[in-house]
Amino acid sequence: MAPLGNEKNQLYLGLFIHSVKLGELQYLHDTAVCVDKSGKIVAVEQQYDQKKAEETLYPKLGWKTDDVTVTIAKEGQFFFPGFIDTHIHAPQYPNVGIFGKSTLLDWLNTYTFPMEASLSSLPKARRVYTRCIQRTLAYGTTTAAYYATIHVPSTNLLADLCLSLGQRAFVGRVCMDNLGPDYYLDESASQSLAATRATIDHIRSIDADFDLISPILTPRFAPACSVDAMAQLGALHKETNLPIQTHIAENVDELKLVRDMFPDSKNYADVYDRFGLLGKRTILAHAIHLSDEEVDLVASRGSKVSHCPCSNSALTSGVARVRWLLDKGVGVGLGTDVSGGYSPSVLDAARQAALVSNHLAMPSRTGEKQIDAEAEDDRERVRLSVEEVLHLATRGGAEVVCLGEKIGGFEVGKEWDAQLIGLGLVPDEDDGTESKQDEDQDQEHDTGNVDIFGWERWEDRVAKWVFNGDDRNVKKVWVRGRLVHQRR
Amino acid sequence: MAPLGNEKNQLYLGLFIHSVKLGELQYLHDTAVCVDKSGKIVAVEQQYDQKKAEETLYPKLGWKTDDVTVTIAKEGQFFFPGFIDTHIHAPQYPNVGIFGKSTLLDWLNTYTFPMEASLSSLPKARRVYTRCIQRTLAYGTTTAAYYATIHVPSTNLLADLCLSLGQRAFVGRVCMDNLGPDYYLDESASQSLAATRATIDHIRSIDADFDLISPILTPRFAPACSVDAMAQLGALHKETNLPIQTHIAENVDELKLVRDMFPDSKNYADVYDRFGLLGKRTILAHAIHLSDEEVDLVASRGSKVSHCPCSNSALTSGVARVRWLLDKGVGVGLGTDVSGGYSPSVLDAARQAALVSNHLAMPSRTGEKQIDAEAEDDRERVRLSVEEVLHLATRGGAEVVCLGEKIGGFEVGKEWDAQLIGLGLVPDEDDGTESKQDEDQDQEHDTGNVDIFGWERWEDRVAKWVFNGDDRNVKKVWVRGRLVHQRR
Repeated sequence: MAPLGNEKNQLYLGLFIHSVKLGELQYLHDTAVCVDKSGKIVAVEQQYDQKKAEETLYPKLGWKTDDVTVTIAKEGQFFFPGFIDTHIHAPQYPNVGIFGKSTLLDWLNTYTFPMEASLSSLPKARRVYTRCIQRTLAYGTTTAAYYATIHVPSTNLLADLCLSLGQRAFVGRVCMDNLGPDYYLDESASQSLAATRATIDHIRSIDADFDLISPILTPRFAPACSVDAMAQLGALHKETNLPIQTHIAENVDELKLVRDMFPDSKNYADVYDRFGLLGKRTILAHAIHLSDEEVDLVASRGSKVSHCPCSNSALTSGVARVRWLLDKGVGVGLGTDVSGGYSPSVLDAARQAALVSNHLAMPSRTGEKQIDAEAEDDRERVRLSVEEVLHLATRGGAEVVCLGEKIGGFEVGKEWDAQLIGLGLVPDEDDGTESKQDEDQDQEHDTGNVDIFGWERWEDRVAKWVFNGDDRNVKKVWVRGRLVHQRR
Repeated sequence: MAPLGNEKNQLYLGLFIHSVKLGELQYLHDTAVCVDKSGKIVAVEQQYDQKKAEETLYPKLGWKTDDVTVTIAKEGQFFFPGFIDTHIHAPQYPNVGIFGKSTLLDWLNTYTFPMEASLSSLPKARRVYTRCIQRTLAYGTTTAAYYATIHVPSTNLLADLCLSLGQRAFVGRVCMDNLGPDYYLDESASQSLAATRATIDHIRSIDADFDLISPILTPRFAPACSVDAMAQLGALHKETNLPIQTHIAENVDELKLVRDMFPDSKNYADVYDRFGLLGKRTILAHAIHLSDEEVDLVASRGSKVSHCPCSNSALTSGVARVRWLLDKGVGVGLGTDVSGGYSPSVLDAARQAALVSNHLAMPSRTGEKQIDAEAEDDRERVRLSVEEVLHLATRGGAEVVCLGEKIGGFEVGKEWDAQLIGLGLVPDEDDGTESKQDEDQDQEHDTGNVDIFGWERWEDRVAKWVFNGDDRNVKKVWVRGRLVHQRR
């Protein structure tokens, strides 16, 4: 079991960057952030160095110098809130990048169900889940909303591993008692619910208040659930107020399936709504093909959307209209959707979120631009900036998982879920000597692919990070004040 | 100056993967490839190990064992042809990832021209070009078609650096005597041509037969060139048969500009054609918004297209219809288009080429699929597979730069431009001990983000590489038999 607190208080010093609202990054230079033993931020003070913090902040906080560890972001480094992956299938991690030319429904049968079914094996589940958690932590994911499989023991193992490796997580046993393959299907609605309760009980036994690990009700998606299962899950939600995660409107063939299977429902969103599955704590993955009527329903219920651009492009699903969702008042975060998504990195998801938003703004293929100025403005508005996608990756994601009060930014009262980012500095003019070259190679090895020449503004550095950064730029990662990953 | 040959003959052993035709990768297991001192492949034999090669191949080739160096692809590694970047602006390398919400024409003025102008400084040019070449070599780019700047000395320096660092390159002094900013513009057509000739002369002085480094005529794009400049460049091409590179139909505002500036031309392609700039050796970057008439003209002239998906998405330019170009008989390769493109990696370009092709196949946003079966088939056809984008990155690119006889695959007579790729093996079940964890971290550090669990088929491994690979997977890189990059 993970320690519930940290041994010492912590002082963080240097540059802190976070999103204060959609489209606005705040750069806190020369700043001190104090984190107490429970992992909570208790002070954020600008224009502070270590000496000033020791002299003025420690007395106020009742801290003694020898009871504080100090972490400094070096020149060129910065602290950033941990990423929040609002949609990821841990058991599919071994399949990242493998999807061929499939689309959703054949992809499920060809790649996904066989892999998930094989995780009934606990040794295999341990290997896959350990790797998945280590990788996502290495990419700076401090919170993940995980789908597991239908198997209770390996789902419980995923929860155990998240707790011991220190990743904040929502862990959902997948409910699917309909339309799945014979070899991978819940026996009945009641068995599906009993198994769900078994995982809830297990998580309660390892983290009584769901402080770090929370169960999440997980009807796979409407076509995979009987009406009984959905009705019972809705009732369970009403009973427990546990969060819910599912998929919606990802693929046009799926839409047709839902229309055929639920002829009495007005639309896809209505299917979930009539079973009480559309609430403030519901995370809807994809939401590509929602109608105006549906988005209004989703907004009125306060449900949230996980935008998964890597997956949506890979499976040719479509492009979610993020600006439209935001305009309608729907909260949006980012999901890797491993392994419909090919990358376990939320930074990759952020990058692709910016790129696919540009695709929504692209002119028609004819080369003619026959739209009026207003339409042109509208088209420009759909594009997401670097600042906006980083908002979705942090504060937006926090809202989606209903932890907006706890994580997503650097404010007093929030918990210290953070990453230390370092970018590579290109050496000054190469003098061509061999030893210098070795040095460069060392540096390259350590700092990844972001090359900072030194003349860039900070906003340019952040853009370079978003477009060429990878796990090599993630030097350290903390969850609730606990160091959960560091690069050598 | 680079050595013209290698000290020893070379034997390569193990798995070789290359594209034999569009959509078909060949897997040559347990194969021996012999490369002579000139860097040419002189034997490719399947079912060979070192002993058999020594016993049967060496005598045939007249090789002695102590005059041969042996390189073995270890279990899980493979040799792959070097990547060919058919469109990259070396001076823009420091701007990768920095483009904000600009599109082509404002991006040029805001980011690009100021950066290019600053490379009149030779120390700055040396720093930028050295880094650019090192980075692209580290990503496995063995051949690059570079745009430099308008400055002769720094353009010549780029050629020198490519030669000394060992990257096969086309180096183009940029011709632009029209519509550029005052601070960055050729004085006149004749000055533009004289400067072009100066760079050609310089390259002839360092690589007389253009074996490794070739000049390339580089009218920036039609709006940046006077008709005099284009006419003189066309004449110079006729005189020298040197290759040509330029841009075409990237952006809808650019199309309008071209129509306004060249009212006598039938279309954009025709502008180049009437100045003799559309020939077999012409590389046209982007080609997003070509008409049917234009593509027929391009095809009939035998000109080629450099597809730059990272750039096209980043600058909201559009999506080139690669399948359509190929169907029309136009040769297509990939370009990073640094820094319209945010990544100097051709593997990234390949990944995005697959993804953006899916965008062409996406259903309309309404969620309705009201197209008939034939239209559905057509839509499916536009999607590019992993095998196809790797073809574009290697053999396709070789055709685009008119080196199809020399590079792009592993056949006798071709030159050894290759990369050794290694993917990461996930350890067996983690026993949780600390030492084991350290070991994993070592491995992770070395092998990047591609996780191979061991059960994957080779085609799945290649897909994983395309979607999650980076420079960490590129263990060694050779150009014409010379080792030009290796990771520690």
